[in-house]
Amino acid sequence: MAKAPVLTPRADDFPRWYQDLINKAELADNGPVRGTMVIRPYGYGLWERMQQELDTRIKAAGASNAYFPLFIPQSYLTREAAHVEGFAPELAVVTHGGGKDLEEPVVVRPTSETIVNEYFAKWVRSYRDLPLLINQWANVVRWEMRPRVFLRTTEFLWQEGHTAHATYEDARDYAAHIHRNVYADFMTEVLGIDVVLGRKTARERFAGAVNTLTLEGMMGDGKALQLGTSHELGQNFARAFHTRYLSKEGTEELVWQTSWGASTRMVGGLIMSHGDDDGLRVPPRLAAVQAVVLAIKGDEPVLAAVRETADRLRLAGVRVQVDDRTDIPFGRRAVDWELKGVPVRIEIGPRDLENGTAMLVRRIPGGKEPVAVGDLAGLLPTVLEDDQALLLTESRARREARTADVSTVEEAAEAAAAGGWARIPWATLGTRGEAALAERGVSVRCLVAEDGAVPETDDEAGSVAIVARAY
Amino acid sequence: MAKAPVLTPRADDFPRWYQDLINKAELADNGPVRGTMVIRPYGYGLWERMQQELDTRIKAAGASNAYFPLFIPQSYLTREAAHVEGFAPELAVVTHGGGKDLEEPVVVRPTSETIVNEYFAKWVRSYRDLPLLINQWANVVRWEMRPRVFLRTTEFLWQEGHTAHATYEDARDYAAHIHRNVYADFMTEVLGIDVVLGRKTARERFAGAVNTLTLEGMMGDGKALQLGTSHELGQNFARAFHTRYLSKEGTEELVWQTSWGASTRMVGGLIMSHGDDDGLRVPPRLAAVQAVVLAIKGDEPVLAAVRETADRLRLAGVRVQVDDRTDIPFGRRAVDWELKGVPVRIEIGPRDLENGTAMLVRRIPGGKEPVAVGDLAGLLPTVLEDDQALLLTESRARREARTADVSTVEEAAEAAAAGGWARIPWATLGTRGEAALAERGVSVRCLVAEDGAVPETDDEAGSVAIVARAY
Repeated sequence: MAKAPVLTPRADDFPRWYQDLINKAELADNGPVRGTMVIRPYGYGLWERMQQELDTRIKAAGASNAYFPLFIPQSYLTREAAHVEGFAPELAVVTHGGGKDLEEPVVVRPTSETIVNEYFAKWVRSYRDLPLLINQWANVVRWEMRPRVFLRTTEFLWQEGHTAHATYEDARDYAAHIHRNVYADFMTEVLGIDVVLGRKTARERFAGAVNTLTLEGMMGDGKALQLGTSHELGQNFARAFHTRYLSKEGTEELVWQTSWGASTRMVGGLIMSHGDDDGLRVPPRLAAVQAVVLAIKGDEPVLAAVRETADRLRLAGVRVQVDDRTDIPFGRRAVDWELKGVPVRIEIGPRDLENGTAMLVRRIPGGKEPVAVGDLAGLLPTVLEDDQALLLTESRARREARTADVSTVEEAAEAAAAGGWARIPWATLGTRGEAALAERGVSVRCLVAEDGAVPETDDEAGSVAIVARAY
Repeated sequence: MAKAPVLTPRADDFPRWYQDLINKAELADNGPVRGTMVIRPYGYGLWERMQQELDTRIKAAGASNAYFPLFIPQSYLTREAAHVEGFAPELAVVTHGGGKDLEEPVVVRPTSETIVNEYFAKWVRSYRDLPLLINQWANVVRWEMRPRVFLRTTEFLWQEGHTAHATYEDARDYAAHIHRNVYADFMTEVLGIDVVLGRKTARERFAGAVNTLTLEGMMGDGKALQLGTSHELGQNFARAFHTRYLSKEGTEELVWQTSWGASTRMVGGLIMSHGDDDGLRVPPRLAAVQAVVLAIKGDEPVLAAVRETADRLRLAGVRVQVDDRTDIPFGRRAVDWELKGVPVRIEIGPRDLENGTAMLVRRIPGGKEPVAVGDLAGLLPTVLEDDQALLLTESRARREARTADVSTVEEAAEAAAAGGWARIPWATLGTRGEAALAERGVSVRCLVAEDGAVPETDDEAGSVAIVARAY
């Protein structure tokens, strides 16, 4: 007997599948103000784990957390010309406060380079104060015309790093360090997404940056998602905000800067990378709950076995939750855990008890098999690591299978329209080809070097453009 | 030789001492928009540790984290009459977004009861969905006319819990559980502040609540600071937002609710509770850095001993930082650590090396003594626990010494004006006495029962009012 689908199948309507999954797995709701979202506990739990893993890596990279105000004087935004041009259309503006019209309207931060620089200029005196490495976890607001939960929301949560360095080389190396050792490491090793690391073209660069490094993932429908960016800001903001230091040699110099961010958009990327027609699949290293132990019936011996099994798994270092809500039909609970994508279910009922076994159900490869209860704790850590690796392997296989090497703009546009990525020499494409693709809703996601490295200049010989439709 | 004071002495000008300390210990700066603040890394580190400790306790109380939008439609605020009356004068209003005037202005959340209830009303169907226990870590905005860093800021960071229950009793008990087992436990055991637990009078109650439980601490100048509140909301918001559930008996019922919050204001409370004329004193359980190991000179044997000592302390479970910035004069670094209030300094120089000792400097009781290097790891955990206890003892002693039992409104006002707290029977004071005190800038901080318990009604026989000037 075929199961009635819980979600719209991906092949029928990918965007609707995405929205169905978010609703039914109780990840998020749309907020009342257009483009905002309510992140529900299960969805927020994914974000909390992302925060923990990223925060550890950010601190290991030497940065400290701080907090800058939500409200920025409108005049700050205008000091860096490219920056204000990029962000002006998306700003939310507060004009009333405390029952009065404000003398100068304030903007709700869309990002914090300007206000951060105002303070860096006060805090930095000499080369001894550098590098200054700051990160903040915060909400930002960018008015969205075509919002989609987690992917494009008027308000989103993120971390934004802001650093100041004495030399160009030090800033460049730090932006690259964040790109590879913080973001790529986290996305590959924890999220299980096979991201491509590259350099943005001038057209796609962050407003105010001299170089934007990006991490691009291929989603289940073959489209691209930018999962994080790390920018070299050069001296653009330093010039606008007079962020100077006294060098060892006694001269006044402008600092060199970076900024870098990753957001709740990654939750959307997780869904679209690993979700299937039954729901989400959460990578075990990310999962707040790696294994759920389910009581099929509410008999005391079953409940006791469930608790005991959960305790044993906890001792083996597995993050476990017990589901003993036996007033809810077992089938409904099983479907719910499938939807939520908990990597492993351990199901225990009276018959299992008699046999001394439990049913081990694996969400990621699929399939179930009875396992002797005594073997579970020994088995699970390996199962979870295998499942973690499997998601990354699938992600890589998809990207490889759906990426085509092409040699004309026309072929690139067709490959993208067919739901895949195209690789085309940047020397062939160029800014004119890029503009032609843009008219067809296709963008250059990034430039990569022939050997997969990140090009060091906009026009490095041998650079290849990765071209796709994107979220 | 007397030290030149680094800070304005508390006895000379307490508010100026507070501001000096915040500047010189690099805790925070004023933001560019009036009333906002920039929390610098050392100040934010204190908040991060508060978050960790509170979050653990909140999760142990069964609540899950989620996230609701920053922007609330103005119309939501008006649905609960008392609530809008309380918050309307403090609202920040966004009137422009994405380059256009908005059809309906949106307010920046001053607190989230309204928007939370809009979603609780959708999520809650039956008694099986209750209790619904949610918490969020977020920024909120309340326009401040007389801002002071950490204590009263236009934007502040906090956690706000929101829960829905099937019965009055369950909601009442949960609000009390948060009050005592989350907030009081954290403030007493981690912050080392001897808070008084009480009930707010009707006049001081949260706008929209039927009962507000509070935790009040006495600051170094004898004034009171409200450090956290836990509210019973009754069915006020449920009625306004139609938050109903289907009972076991099949009837439609309104839920009973609570909300509760604690904020970055606690950082201000920490400073004013434990700070002295040399700077901050951070309780060891809160401190991100419990001990700093300082190299007095930059010789290699000294640096090696510093690293080795730090490693040994880390193994003993102490949170340690190394200070080997020997290009900065030792005296300046020592003063800076005093200002920052790190509980223990271990100073090592060439002479100490010869003797096989290190100088152990204790910030909390004060004083220094040479200790054999080999004894440090064994000694420090005890020293830190003693210092933790000492701060709480001092806090309690201050409250007891500066609290007077009085029997007239006049005496209560005088005691408060003299920089202390007064205890006066609520039957004597009453709402008329409370109003008379208010005219003199004195408020009833809370009502307590004779035995120190929290009164269960506004007019419980034998209740005593704690009266003080407050931040």
